[in-house]
Amino acid sequence: MIKVVIIGGGNVATHLANAFSKANDVLLVQVYARNIKQIEHLKDVTSITNSIELLKEADVYIIAVSDDAISHVSSKIKNSLVVHTSGSVAMQSLQNAGRKGIFYLLQSFSKDKEVNFDEIPFCLEAENEQDSLLLETLAKTIGKKIYHINSEQRKRLHVAAVFVNNFTNHMYKIGADICNEYQVPFEILYPLIQETAEKITKLNPEAAQTGPAKRNDQKTIQNHLALLNTEQQEIYKLITKSIQQNGKKL
Amino acid sequence: MIKVVIIGGGNVATHLANAFSKANDVLLVQVYARNIKQIEHLKDVTSITNSIELLKEADVYIIAVSDDAISHVSSKIKNSLVVHTSGSVAMQSLQNAGRKGIFYLLQSFSKDKEVNFDEIPFCLEAENEQDSLLLETLAKTIGKKIYHINSEQRKRLHVAAVFVNNFTNHMYKIGADICNEYQVPFEILYPLIQETAEKITKLNPEAAQTGPAKRNDQKTIQNHLALLNTEQQEIYKLITKSIQQNGKKL
Repeated sequence: MIKVVIIGGGNVATHLANAFSKANDVLLVQVYARNIKQIEHLKDVTSITNSIELLKEADVYIIAVSDDAISHVSSKIKNSLVVHTSGSVAMQSLQNAGRKGIFYLLQSFSKDKEVNFDEIPFCLEAENEQDSLLLETLAKTIGKKIYHINSEQRKRLHVAAVFVNNFTNHMYKIGADICNEYQVPFEILYPLIQETAEKITKLNPEAAQTGPAKRNDQKTIQNHLALLNTEQQEIYKLITKSIQQNGKKL
Repeated sequence: MIKVVIIGGGNVATHLANAFSKANDVLLVQVYARNIKQIEHLKDVTSITNSIELLKEADVYIIAVSDDAISHVSSKIKNSLVVHTSGSVAMQSLQNAGRKGIFYLLQSFSKDKEVNFDEIPFCLEAENEQDSLLLETLAKTIGKKIYHINSEQRKRLHVAAVFVNNFTNHMYKIGADICNEYQVPFEILYPLIQETAEKITKLNPEAAQTGPAKRNDQKTIQNHLALLNTEQQEIYKLITKSIQQNGKKL
């Protein structure tokens, strides 16, 4: 039985607390949040507190707070193994005197949306083999996709995630803007969006590329630019250039 | 029974020919391709030809050739209703003397991948109500998602498709490059990619946006830029700026 304390009241902390409270072989000892209201809904499944001085004993303390608060919060924890869930903060930013690690869940969480932990990649890191195994055992109680990723790799993974998540979503946003302006239902594009996302699980993204930029179809490119506003044009030109430069490198 | 002739030997033509050859209430009279080898596999299901002078009688001629060839090919067709399948060519580019229309399938087709026509949006346009109904009836023999989209709307839809398909795929490509450089398995990002694509069917892309650009988290943005090459930096900066400008407009 692995004893776990979760520090945080946000989306990641809440989803982890719910999952661990139902998992076998894990005892969710306590959840801490500065604002106790954020975690009041957990009081039936575990002990809750807003006093960092009153943390209970556990095998693993999981810090799921904003990046900026990780160092400070970790300095308050005296015992055991302390891990954080951030994609962009180094393991050495943890300021606890004891052992350190990472328990990074690479997925975007929404408060109201149910999370399927089976599908979420757990990116783990620890200072020694034993802790690495402990985190793996812990992750396996709620998840299936377990990766050991060091801090250098994790930093890159986090940037890559910004491209495939935030920046991709912004491409959807621009697509939706263009549709809305001409009363075209954006839903017409849903199947293409799904297909694009699925295709790269079978074919690498470079091989999967199609379209006017890839074909260097200048006529279509010029027609497209004429339909866009200045901001959209700037993005269209830069990504088109990047697709084409990539073609040249091959 | 609607009699159809398909002009073209590429992916769209082939998938349409296969679908119509199995559909009820449609008779696939003939398929034409300049290079007969491209359509030889269809000779058991329909008549094939490489002579544009020998086209048979039909109710609808569907031109599925490259954009540049549409005008020329259409000028050779004497009778009936002629439609093309391009997202970016105007209906009036058709040079047949008779009636004109559009039969645009908004999806990217691959030669070897089976197509589920139930999921593909058919974007139809015609010069009069009767032809509009004829195309709708025809589309419904193989598909389910039918939209009437005029040429102005279709032009915008095509640009929007470039953003959500080609440009999104390029975001995946950059993500994969960053992963590969540090021996991080790109597959770790698949669930995030799927989640991002699904999320916008429930929440509009603007509301769905998260991440350092949206939060204006300058520390993370600077850390990310330090990890990228010049080309990646340029794209990162421009899209971050665009996400933030959008925030200001609200």
